[in-house]
Amino acid sequence: MKDSFMSAAIALLALSQSALPARAVDHPAPAASNVPGAELPSVNPDGSIAFALKAPDAGSVLVAGGDGLGKGPFPMTKGVDGTWSVTTPPSVPGFHYYWFVVNGVSVNDPASETYFGYGKETSGIEVPEAGVDFYSIKNVPHGEVRAKWYLSKTTGEWRRAFVYTPPGYDEHQKTRYPLLILQHGSGEDETGWTRQGRAQFILDNLIAAGVARPMIVVMDRGYAQRPGTPAAAVGANAWLQNLHLAFSAFEDVVLHDLIPTIDASYRTIPDREHRAMAGLSMGGMQTLFIALQHLDMFAYIGSFSGPIVPSLTAGNPTLSPNPQEHFDTKSAYGGAFADPSAFNKRVKLFWLGVGTAESDQFRIGIGGAVEALRSAGVRLEYFESKGTAHEWQTWRRDLYDFAPRLFR
Amino acid sequence: MKDSFMSAAIALLALSQSALPARAVDHPAPAASNVPGAELPSVNPDGSIAFALKAPDAGSVLVAGGDGLGKGPFPMTKGVDGTWSVTTPPSVPGFHYYWFVVNGVSVNDPASETYFGYGKETSGIEVPEAGVDFYSIKNVPHGEVRAKWYLSKTTGEWRRAFVYTPPGYDEHQKTRYPLLILQHGSGEDETGWTRQGRAQFILDNLIAAGVARPMIVVMDRGYAQRPGTPAAAVGANAWLQNLHLAFSAFEDVVLHDLIPTIDASYRTIPDREHRAMAGLSMGGMQTLFIALQHLDMFAYIGSFSGPIVPSLTAGNPTLSPNPQEHFDTKSAYGGAFADPSAFNKRVKLFWLGVGTAESDQFRIGIGGAVEALRSAGVRLEYFESKGTAHEWQTWRRDLYDFAPRLFR
Repeated sequence: MKDSFMSAAIALLALSQSALPARAVDHPAPAASNVPGAELPSVNPDGSIAFALKAPDAGSVLVAGGDGLGKGPFPMTKGVDGTWSVTTPPSVPGFHYYWFVVNGVSVNDPASETYFGYGKETSGIEVPEAGVDFYSIKNVPHGEVRAKWYLSKTTGEWRRAFVYTPPGYDEHQKTRYPLLILQHGSGEDETGWTRQGRAQFILDNLIAAGVARPMIVVMDRGYAQRPGTPAAAVGANAWLQNLHLAFSAFEDVVLHDLIPTIDASYRTIPDREHRAMAGLSMGGMQTLFIALQHLDMFAYIGSFSGPIVPSLTAGNPTLSPNPQEHFDTKSAYGGAFADPSAFNKRVKLFWLGVGTAESDQFRIGIGGAVEALRSAGVRLEYFESKGTAHEWQTWRRDLYDFAPRLFR
Repeated sequence: MKDSFMSAAIALLALSQSALPARAVDHPAPAASNVPGAELPSVNPDGSIAFALKAPDAGSVLVAGGDGLGKGPFPMTKGVDGTWSVTTPPSVPGFHYYWFVVNGVSVNDPASETYFGYGKETSGIEVPEAGVDFYSIKNVPHGEVRAKWYLSKTTGEWRRAFVYTPPGYDEHQKTRYPLLILQHGSGEDETGWTRQGRAQFILDNLIAAGVARPMIVVMDRGYAQRPGTPAAAVGANAWLQNLHLAFSAFEDVVLHDLIPTIDASYRTIPDREHRAMAGLSMGGMQTLFIALQHLDMFAYIGSFSGPIVPSLTAGNPTLSPNPQEHFDTKSAYGGAFADPSAFNKRVKLFWLGVGTAESDQFRIGIGGAVEALRSAGVRLEYFESKGTAHEWQTWRRDLYDFAPRLFR
């Protein structure tokens, strides 16, 4: 028998579960996001992280990452055995994308699971938050997450959505459930909410506690392109034109492909009073773009750190490339808020959130819209995630606040 | 609004579907396993592959990979813009793990999806096979793949299994289905059969053609460790002792945790005549280890490129570290084949397979056991995958041959 096979067979002994349980936060511990058996990266009680990479022949190695990891990149130091290492300053709790830069090339950490972000597979690290377990897997009834493939008339291609069915779904064949459409951010994909976001465990826990109503959640891929769509336009306002083109194709997918598929395949209650849409960042933009144009389809709307782009409507795709500077409640989003009392009557929940550590563009843009809308008499819920930036810990907390308010 | 956010928002336009459809094989094309929008790696009609990595400051870059990619590693050449590239000799069709070696460090290709292999996330490339589409997604009814979390009494931890439910499962509430337990190989995990193996599409296609019986398939994580298990032993025969320890813990998971969970959660037909177990490589070893000891539980047994380890039984864990050299049909696997006519009567299907390009250890070990068993009068099916090695194309073909023979 081959040595390599024998080694592999023995190596399996080191592999244990990958349930990403809540880990101890009172002593250094391998990150829950590590591949099984990897001791490093290791998270210290203060949130600082020890990283290492064996690279005897590299000339330089750094570690860098997304919001929340700290002010990187952090140069690593080469040890006598050729292993480069560094311990970062304390990071905030939650999930952070990261990568090594080896001789100028960004690469993943072989010791980490990968997560789809930045348009590619990227390492990620889970930093526990002391006393917080709302996104941990617990000994409560669990729903399922189902991969559902469907053929899109809009794009002409097979698409994959993930569908969370709540605990008891298979047992209670006569029960029908409300539906939440929950979308990822730019550069991420339909895996984001269950892998980085742990949405299924957040919902399991909320439902077990009787705090959220059992619901079906569908997480689709937030990209869509109609066959024969012209290449992206160029020019000063091109990004808005591009967004409109992309968002309107996705709008068609949601309205004409996804919702009919889900309503036909699962025991939804197929009316607007039992249908919600929410998303993070780009997914929040898409939610506002789609739901505010189709209030006949959605009574519950949530945008988690979604930039406010009030002019991104079908008739007016090119105005205001920095739109949060002139938020006009009368004209924003095609006039959706022009009659606040009608809006308040129609929309059961309008929910906006942002992290307090997000950049001004998000905080001021979203906070300014909240102020303007409230001043105009629009009823909304506004949630601030304390100390977190444009990152998954913000969006986990958002979902934890948002989901219990649905379908009441 | 941040430039980085705008760039990301625009970048989404380049992202399309990731359904891994069958691609054209008559002209060079980006691999179906690339992340959306990546032009390279690109597969040529002859199976050769163009790889590239931008790394202006690297001193050397190679590309290397698993069986089937060819005789690597292949040194890459640096171009004027700092991009290293190479076109490999023709590879065989199918899925191949691969990685770059940058200044001696093995790293993933940022242009590729990653797949769990070698105990970590690893790049993979899909090379189309001309005229072959049995593992493509087609316009037929599709089953679902469900993530099922369950608490294991054996290990004390939460485990994730994936469960394929066949097309029509939700609609036909009075129909019960047979169950196949289908296991991955060493270094892989419970995601392998649906990501690398495309088992769900193989089954969808077979069921749509009326060739395979609709069935439930559960794909579990093939690693288990009892709490308090002593650390791996050392010594000449240690690897067999270790395997026994690991396999017997997994045996308990399968028998006492997994099967009861699946039978309680899904509409199985919970008897041996409607229960099969199969696996690839280590998963084949586990199948033989578990199923041959528990013929009261399984009537259908398949080992795909699973090394034959006839002495790996509970009472005799340390014999014969190179066991295929002395395969004794009377004593092998605890005497499971000692009475061939009784075995033939009891076991509805005993299926062994290997790729013709696998190493002698696999071909001779498995082929020798097949000869010995047939000479002794044991009825079995033996399948050889032409021209493929110890790799997923072999195991896709295995499943395609194996599944139609089940539950007849």
